[in-house]
Amino acid sequence: MKINGKPWRPVWLENDGWAVGIIDQTRLPFAFETLRLENLDQAAHAISAMQVRGAPLIGATAAFGMALAMRQNASDPNLGAAYDRLLRTRPTAINLKWALDDMRQRLAPIAPNERVPAANARAAQIVEEDVEINRMIGVHGLDLIRQIAAKKDGPVNILTHCNAGWLATCDWGTATSPIYQAHDAGIPVHVWVDETRPRNQGGHLTAWELMNHGVPHTVIVDNAGGHLMQRGEVDLCFTGTDRTTATGDVCNKIGTYLKALAAQDNGVPFYVCLPSPTIDWTVRDGIAEIPIEERNAAEVTNVAGLAENGAVVQARVVSPGSSAANPAFDVTPARLVTGLVTERGVAEATAEGLAGLFPEKAA
Amino acid sequence: MKINGKPWRPVWLENDGWAVGIIDQTRLPFAFETLRLENLDQAAHAISAMQVRGAPLIGATAAFGMALAMRQNASDPNLGAAYDRLLRTRPTAINLKWALDDMRQRLAPIAPNERVPAANARAAQIVEEDVEINRMIGVHGLDLIRQIAAKKDGPVNILTHCNAGWLATCDWGTATSPIYQAHDAGIPVHVWVDETRPRNQGGHLTAWELMNHGVPHTVIVDNAGGHLMQRGEVDLCFTGTDRTTATGDVCNKIGTYLKALAAQDNGVPFYVCLPSPTIDWTVRDGIAEIPIEERNAAEVTNVAGLAENGAVVQARVVSPGSSAANPAFDVTPARLVTGLVTERGVAEATAEGLAGLFPEKAA
Repeated sequence: MKINGKPWRPVWLENDGWAVGIIDQTRLPFAFETLRLENLDQAAHAISAMQVRGAPLIGATAAFGMALAMRQNASDPNLGAAYDRLLRTRPTAINLKWALDDMRQRLAPIAPNERVPAANARAAQIVEEDVEINRMIGVHGLDLIRQIAAKKDGPVNILTHCNAGWLATCDWGTATSPIYQAHDAGIPVHVWVDETRPRNQGGHLTAWELMNHGVPHTVIVDNAGGHLMQRGEVDLCFTGTDRTTATGDVCNKIGTYLKALAAQDNGVPFYVCLPSPTIDWTVRDGIAEIPIEERNAAEVTNVAGLAENGAVVQARVVSPGSSAANPAFDVTPARLVTGLVTERGVAEATAEGLAGLFPEKAA
Repeated sequence: MKINGKPWRPVWLENDGWAVGIIDQTRLPFAFETLRLENLDQAAHAISAMQVRGAPLIGATAAFGMALAMRQNASDPNLGAAYDRLLRTRPTAINLKWALDDMRQRLAPIAPNERVPAANARAAQIVEEDVEINRMIGVHGLDLIRQIAAKKDGPVNILTHCNAGWLATCDWGTATSPIYQAHDAGIPVHVWVDETRPRNQGGHLTAWELMNHGVPHTVIVDNAGGHLMQRGEVDLCFTGTDRTTATGDVCNKIGTYLKALAAQDNGVPFYVCLPSPTIDWTVRDGIAEIPIEERNAAEVTNVAGLAENGAVVQARVVSPGSSAANPAFDVTPARLVTGLVTERGVAEATAEGLAGLFPEKAA
């Protein structure tokens, strides 16, 4: 999407045809800086240090990392070593393993001197496939926005939680894809951006994205969404998801469940946008079966912000001496989800709904 | 309640019998400092600068402020001037006007040379009346905790939102009173403390109170409570309220409604603790009739915290260039409230329930 009117993606092949460019997301939103990755070490560091984050983007960056490794040494042993090295960067990211497996399977059978161009070509293809999935999610989500826009005056008010935006993918984002497409199509939209404590991905990244693309938006604390829905100020909700069960339960950033409850209580449609690879066809009961990651309490007790002197500071915001808990995700039961917006269309959040769109997977 | 084993209240008459001591709440939780108020100006500043906050505490401090003003000049014109000056400090605090009206009515008819002792005596009485109301809220709430403790092993897990603690009242607090009484009675309790963005009264003040009194507790982001309820880690909720309607709708700090929804969805009892003066017998539909204060967006975009160098800093936590909205309260419909814990007992959150406990008011 756009920054100051110019299209950007969060990862790209540089003009020299081999180095990899990224936006350093650890500096956002307080500074916009790009990095040039020239070798395996730098690619692995970019992923582990969260200079790139978001499952699809991690997968794409890892694929480019394999290409950089082949440029350094295209031997069989180095192919295996690069795979191992990149896989260790973020052990739980499902797209990471998928992308690395895909790269290794394609590169292993071919001659070492053919591996660099093959790796670059496949990495670029992985990016384009992700972009196309997200674009199609947006096409289907756009219909939902259009239906509301046709029935009301003024902007369509959309609430979103966390960052399921273009910075987390190769472009468009998932939950933000319908929003960008509506905005680009001239449909007036306004986005309520949940701050998304503890890591503030909403207030930091989603707000930054929307501002740079020119989409009207307002940041709110995570506490405020229910009240806005009560007062009729939210027309629909779009969120992303880290994992969706075969029955439509949605595991997403902590706090998603509370917004889904408020949406149901106020008759506000609650849609979850997802690329089909994030559907876990083996799980049927999200609350019982999905383990929830407990992250470092320091993410709760300390926040990153911009001090008055312009420096980025870490500030403790919890009373010294008190400890904190930090469950990172929650599960929204399918009964609270109005629909699942996928690249193939909008499914009911039920086993039947998902099986209808993905018969080959649900078998 | 206690700080380092020693009992404290947030306002007191100094040993000299005329100056007024307060805890400077603007410095909490990062520094504990007391202030000595010696005149009307200092008392008015303490209220307007939020060195004291919380409706009951504001009322009590204003009463003491009238006593300080009488000590400076006990004339009729100064009585009126002191009333006007203190009333302007926080125009919307209902207890403030109530306390000032009460003081003026008692002081106006008596001779100027009798006004200082009369004012001090009445201010002290206002404090004790508030303490007794809160103590009785705790007695009734304690029964609810006891019932749960009798049925389970391990601590009773209580979730609370914002600070309805002793710092907001003259002692005990409202939502915290049952908790302190249970802890003091040897019933094991553990408190989930909602951080309560944007002003972080939970992570700042409730956590500070509980730590200093020795009550086990864990701070969580406002997003986490629903997940904890889903996993059976919350036995009951206690919150305070700024205004309760005659029908049991509860206006309280933004985000309360989301926790009440999650409590209902998971069968967790949700109790609201309130002194009966906060019941607004003239309002029957909280969502339709209670105006919600929209506060400064800077409370959302900036947070106060302790930097690594030990200085208290204001840090911007929202992407520069994005704006924020800041509705400060929300309304929890009575249907989501398990019961209203008052100084007279626990009422159903219905017109009949409240009228049963307060027949003289409901007529």
